[in-house]
Amino acid sequence: MKNSDLQARFNAIRSNKIFELFVVGIIIFSALVIGAKTYHLPPYLEGTINVLDIGITVFFLVEIMVRFFGEESKKNFFKSGWNIFDTLIVIVSLIPVNDTEMALVGRLIRIFRVLRMISIIPELRLLLNSLLKALPQLGYVMLLMFIIFYIYAAVGSTFFLDINPELWGNISISMLTLFRVMTFEDWTDVMYETMTVYPLSWAYYLSFIFFTTFAFLNMIIGIVVNVLEEERQNVRKEEEALENAGQPTIEDLHQQLAEIKTLIQQNQK
Amino acid sequence: MKNSDLQARFNAIRSNKIFELFVVGIIIFSALVIGAKTYHLPPYLEGTINVLDIGITVFFLVEIMVRFFGEESKKNFFKSGWNIFDTLIVIVSLIPVNDTEMALVGRLIRIFRVLRMISIIPELRLLLNSLLKALPQLGYVMLLMFIIFYIYAAVGSTFFLDINPELWGNISISMLTLFRVMTFEDWTDVMYETMTVYPLSWAYYLSFIFFTTFAFLNMIIGIVVNVLEEERQNVRKEEEALENAGQPTIEDLHQQLAEIKTLIQQNQK
Amino acid sequence: MKNSDLQARFNAIRSNKIFELFVVGIIIFSALVIGAKTYHLPPYLEGTINVLDIGITVFFLVEIMVRFFGEESKKNFFKSGWNIFDTLIVIVSLIPVNDTEMALVGRLIRIFRVLRMISIIPELRLLLNSLLKALPQLGYVMLLMFIIFYIYAAVGSTFFLDINPELWGNISISMLTLFRVMTFEDWTDVMYETMTVYPLSWAYYLSFIFFTTFAFLNMIIGIVVNVLEEERQNVRKEEEALENAGQPTIEDLHQQLAEIKTLIQQNQK
Amino acid sequence: MKNSDLQARFNAIRSNKIFELFVVGIIIFSALVIGAKTYHLPPYLEGTINVLDIGITVFFLVEIMVRFFGEESKKNFFKSGWNIFDTLIVIVSLIPVNDTEMALVGRLIRIFRVLRMISIIPELRLLLNSLLKALPQLGYVMLLMFIIFYIYAAVGSTFFLDINPELWGNISISMLTLFRVMTFEDWTDVMYETMTVYPLSWAYYLSFIFFTTFAFLNMIIGIVVNVLEEERQNVRKEEEALENAGQPTIEDLHQQLAEIKTLIQQNQK
Repeated sequence: MKNSDLQARFNAIRSNKIFELFVVGIIIFSALVIGAKTYHLPPYLEGTINVLDIGITVFFLVEIMVRFFGEESKKNFFKSGWNIFDTLIVIVSLIPVNDTEMALVGRLIRIFRVLRMISIIPELRLLLNSLLKALPQLGYVMLLMFIIFYIYAAVGSTFFLDINPELWGNISISMLTLFRVMTFEDWTDVMYETMTVYPLSWAYYLSFIFFTTFAFLNMIIGIVVNVLEEERQNVRKEEEALENAGQPTIEDLHQQLAEIKTLIQQNQK
Repeated sequence: MKNSDLQARFNAIRSNKIFELFVVGIIIFSALVIGAKTYHLPPYLEGTINVLDIGITVFFLVEIMVRFFGEESKKNFFKSGWNIFDTLIVIVSLIPVNDTEMALVGRLIRIFRVLRMISIIPELRLLLNSLLKALPQLGYVMLLMFIIFYIYAAVGSTFFLDINPELWGNISISMLTLFRVMTFEDWTDVMYETMTVYPLSWAYYLSFIFFTTFAFLNMIIGIVVNVLEEERQNVRKEEEALENAGQPTIEDLHQQLAEIKTLIQQNQK
Repeated sequence: MKNSDLQARFNAIRSNKIFELFVVGIIIFSALVIGAKTYHLPPYLEGTINVLDIGITVFFLVEIMVRFFGEESKKNFFKSGWNIFDTLIVIVSLIPVNDTEMALVGRLIRIFRVLRMISIIPELRLLLNSLLKALPQLGYVMLLMFIIFYIYAAVGSTFFLDINPELWGNISISMLTLFRVMTFEDWTDVMYETMTVYPLSWAYYLSFIFFTTFAFLNMIIGIVVNVLEEERQNVRKEEEALENAGQPTIEDLHQQLAEIKTLIQQNQK
Repeated sequence: MKNSDLQARFNAIRSNKIFELFVVGIIIFSALVIGAKTYHLPPYLEGTINVLDIGITVFFLVEIMVRFFGEESKKNFFKSGWNIFDTLIVIVSLIPVNDTEMALVGRLIRIFRVLRMISIIPELRLLLNSLLKALPQLGYVMLLMFIIFYIYAAVGSTFFLDINPELWGNISISMLTLFRVMTFEDWTDVMYETMTVYPLSWAYYLSFIFFTTFAFLNMIIGIVVNVLEEERQNVRKEEEALENAGQPTIEDLHQQLAEIKTLIQQNQK
């Protein structure tokens, strides 16, 4: 059997709808196994689950190899971030782990296999891509928010350090405390505590809440404007498609009129 | 009296505006009776309420029969989900309940009679239908959110199990805890507890909050885009209606110009 | 001096910009007096404030009389809801109150004088009107939300009554508890308590949160669509104004072409 | 060396890309130094940091002088709010502080040096400007919100003063408490406390939450409408630019038709 024959066969398997559904099924099954492990189970069931785990690992290994050998150009395979992600997950779960420290890491890797759901369902992949695409645009808003956090945290850990070192011990702890204030989680407890020493410190919290809420609103509006912009471009593309489809435009009318004019002028002579 | 005569009479009753208002009145009254039952009442009032309850059940039975016999085609009657819902509610409340276990179920059924308000007021029916219509479109965002929850819950119950089994006992309890974190309800208590063992676990919570907020934002934007899309289609329909109403379009001008051109060319000859 | 002379003079005062600013100043001053009363004050200051209070009441009485006598048609005066509101506030604050029970009501009335700020600043009046205009449109969403609350409260007070009568005592207390759950305020405490008896009661809370969030989202979208609709109508009005301003439209072109056609056809003959 | 030569050289330094990046680097470094100070450091490191601090102050002084002398018209330099801000920060950090009271102020000033990040990165400056531009438009909504707060606080401190003076002691404390209620932070604790005396006081809280939520929604919609308005103006500008770029418009067609008509009418004669 020739090499290209094998490749064609693998490619056929890869594109097979039933094979795809089967892979999705195995991923869901592996997710359930991961979930089952978090329950207290009788020993014989735990044994079964460990066997199932090995089975899933082997299946994923086979599947990734089918997809790799089915690919015509081996280079293209590693151009897709999702393929690299899948391969890494599979390879790492092959490493045998006995050490307790490593056992946790091993379990973590197995959990990340659930993420393969996103890599295999195109709609989810699309959704995640659009989320990631929106991120850099919001970069400057995030930088601004970080600066606000940093300044308030520096002020906080300067003034409130002696009041409650657990909340204002250093700039990183202060930033965590401020994040808590931003989520309104028991923020009044934090405020009342500092108000006993600095009675005007409510201004610190209220201005912080005001600034972050405002920056957050700005972020949402940024996303909305972005979405609207895309919508507008879709409308424009549609209009252009209409034009190319032979529908007359104002420019066509313009040309027709110019032709008529020359015709009449020729008549006049 | 012929069968079709009876049917026509029932149909007349069914479509009668006063009858409809009367039914709405009885539904509101039945809701008030349900509410009244939750208060401590003197025995004689409780007796009265039980009698009223039977009266309401009988009225609903009569009403559903009027609507059923008033329907020309009996098949159509059961094609509407709301009719099936109404019939089920009425039939189940007919079953006599004495057993304490079943008594609760019986009361539950009586409560669901309030939902008949939605089935009888067209505006509410419309509202609910539009809510249900929006659900499947958000399906993939929800699936993505579920995957995020599942992975974080698996990680959480792997690492934090020994810290607080009540919050991280197994994957389902962990998902409930994460939902609590998403609603910002005492989430810092959960975090501070795990930070005593894993000082870096704040990254777990912050990344989770970040991802779910982002996915939630995406959901809202999904709905907004959807609404805008509908708006846009309404505008387009309006424009088409204008066209069909005889208003000239660019294409009409195009044709007129072509006619003029031929006229002039005929002149030239 | 004639009656119409007096009226014209009052009308002049009423429309005077300085008089208006003076009234706004007195309202702000009355608000400050109300605020000052909530502090512990030395007796002599309290006396001063009581004198000021009488002064403000008299000024408001004079002001409302100027506005009333300045109005040409006395009927129109009471057609404006704001005028009726102002008159009521002034009349009620004239009633002398000594009784402790009534004293509180008297203070309450004085507080509502701050609302006169809205009745006197046109921009605030506009803002409030647009808020009130949006309310009826949201009526059905609110009815739906009330039904959701009512059903869940009935279910809650049926099942959870014995667990915590303070939270689930009757249908009205249950609705208050559910509002608390909707605002995510210590909702997990409420849930954990009922989960000890009904381990599946998390489904009750999660479905409730889901439904109310969804209905709330719907409300927001309702407002947004409303705003967009208004925007769209503004654009249309602008386009129509452009048309009426003599700018050529497609219909104008159509007529011109028809005229040219007849001219050419006349030539042919 | 002539004065204008020096100025040109300074201007060249100022516009130099590498110099700008270096300044950004120093600002980030100064931010890190500020952050480091909040940690417990061994004495020798604290000495180093103090030396670094002086170095940064000197660098900022040199940088501001380069920018000042590089400016052609000294008047323009102080026309930019950011330049004034930068100069103030630098001058104040020059004042030597030994007194403990002043030491805190000195540290505060050093923290505000992080804000120079905004003054030096154009994208952040743009973002902040657009935030500030949106503020006045929201002015009336904020005034309305303040009136709501003021009235509710006055009512609250009138009725609830004796129940809990720490929450309702005077009108300013009451406003802080109401802000807490608005953020849903333990608001039920506040409510349950007053409900023991006034059982109907839930209406006070619920109406307050309703009004503020509604006003807040209005604020968001105000921002969204604003953004849409800007979008619409951008579209219009684009269309106008298209027109000016020589693309034919309906008006051009109109003129052409008029010319053709006169040509034909000339033929007829």
